[in-house]
Amino acid sequence: MTAGRFISLEGGEGAGKSTQARALAAALEARGIPIVVTREPGGSDGAESIRALLLTGETNRWSPHSEALLFAAARADHVERTIGPALSAGSWVICDRFLDSTRAYQGAAEGIDDAAVLALHAFGSKGLLPDRTFVLDMGPEEGARRAARRDGGATDRFAQRDSAFHQAVADAFRRIAAHEPDRVRMVDATRPVEAVTAALLDGLADLL
Amino acid sequence: MTAGRFISLEGGEGAGKSTQARALAAALEARGIPIVVTREPGGSDGAESIRALLLTGETNRWSPHSEALLFAAARADHVERTIGPALSAGSWVICDRFLDSTRAYQGAAEGIDDAAVLALHAFGSKGLLPDRTFVLDMGPEEGARRAARRDGGATDRFAQRDSAFHQAVADAFRRIAAHEPDRVRMVDATRPVEAVTAALLDGLADLL
Repeated sequence: MTAGRFISLEGGEGAGKSTQARALAAALEARGIPIVVTREPGGSDGAESIRALLLTGETNRWSPHSEALLFAAARADHVERTIGPALSAGSWVICDRFLDSTRAYQGAAEGIDDAAVLALHAFGSKGLLPDRTFVLDMGPEEGARRAARRDGGATDRFAQRDSAFHQAVADAFRRIAAHEPDRVRMVDATRPVEAVTAALLDGLADLL
Repeated sequence: MTAGRFISLEGGEGAGKSTQARALAAALEARGIPIVVTREPGGSDGAESIRALLLTGETNRWSPHSEALLFAAARADHVERTIGPALSAGSWVICDRFLDSTRAYQGAAEGIDDAAVLALHAFGSKGLLPDRTFVLDMGPEEGARRAARRDGGATDRFAQRDSAFHQAVADAFRRIAAHEPDRVRMVDATRPVEAVTAALLDGLADLL
């Protein structure tokens, strides 16, 4: 059995990650590829219980260091219990947010060193990296508008942060893509859903 | 204002840590020393919410790596929100379990490298160490009997582990004490409560 491929979708709030995860899964399944769609924080029983701690409550509920450790704990559980077994069984895994979100949010925007984030990931998840990561690129203001429309005004601890925070996140994703061009691709997410999905499929051509 | 002293009480289940924390606090308060008694996992709002994830559920609910990350996250919150502010305000802090429990349980007994546990602690809690740590020493069988009597048969995820696990924990505490004799002192906890408290006070003579 061939091990599956691991794809992550990254980007700010409202960029269309979960919509594209479903659309990409459907397109790949149509080609006969077994797919597991999952998301972070969460994606396994333990990680989902940590998700509730991370997304609800006051913006300052956790220090950046506690938050980075909680994300690493959730990710370790998710990798061990969901992502790893799915890949071993030959499925492709499409994950709505993964390590690069921690690098962008807790790292660049909240001040944790990128090397420290990567060290936690090495410890918790043996440093597992996606085979391909797509950053769904959209201006933070447009993303916030779309997220607000989607969520009817309900926001989590991260969506509540100010525009400087979201700009720092967007800049961090661009920086990661610039430094790791083999793994990470920027995708213009302001286009219609179908056009974005087609761009994702194009970006997987070498893996298909 | 003088910064306070930080004392941790360690040991296996049923060794009398919480009883001694209260007794030691009373003895020090009688000398006019302001005391904060706290415990791990927990001791701050965030850490208490993580405590519930750590102590309930199946023994194998978390992998050792996820568990070590959760303990580090809880400890980071506890240090930042409870222990650090209390010490800065001049209180002494008596903590029922701290870093050495993670070194003994997730480290020695569950197989995480001591260096990795210390690296997580450096990241989350700036490596804060107690000024003095007492290991309440009692054979694991006797401790388990006392814990079962105290808890009426209810046990948490750690108390449920087998005797080899608890022996590994006891051995680890002795090893830590042997390697860090200035900070860590073994105390025979099979004696009457008052005799153990007197031994703790003796062991603080240089800090008083």
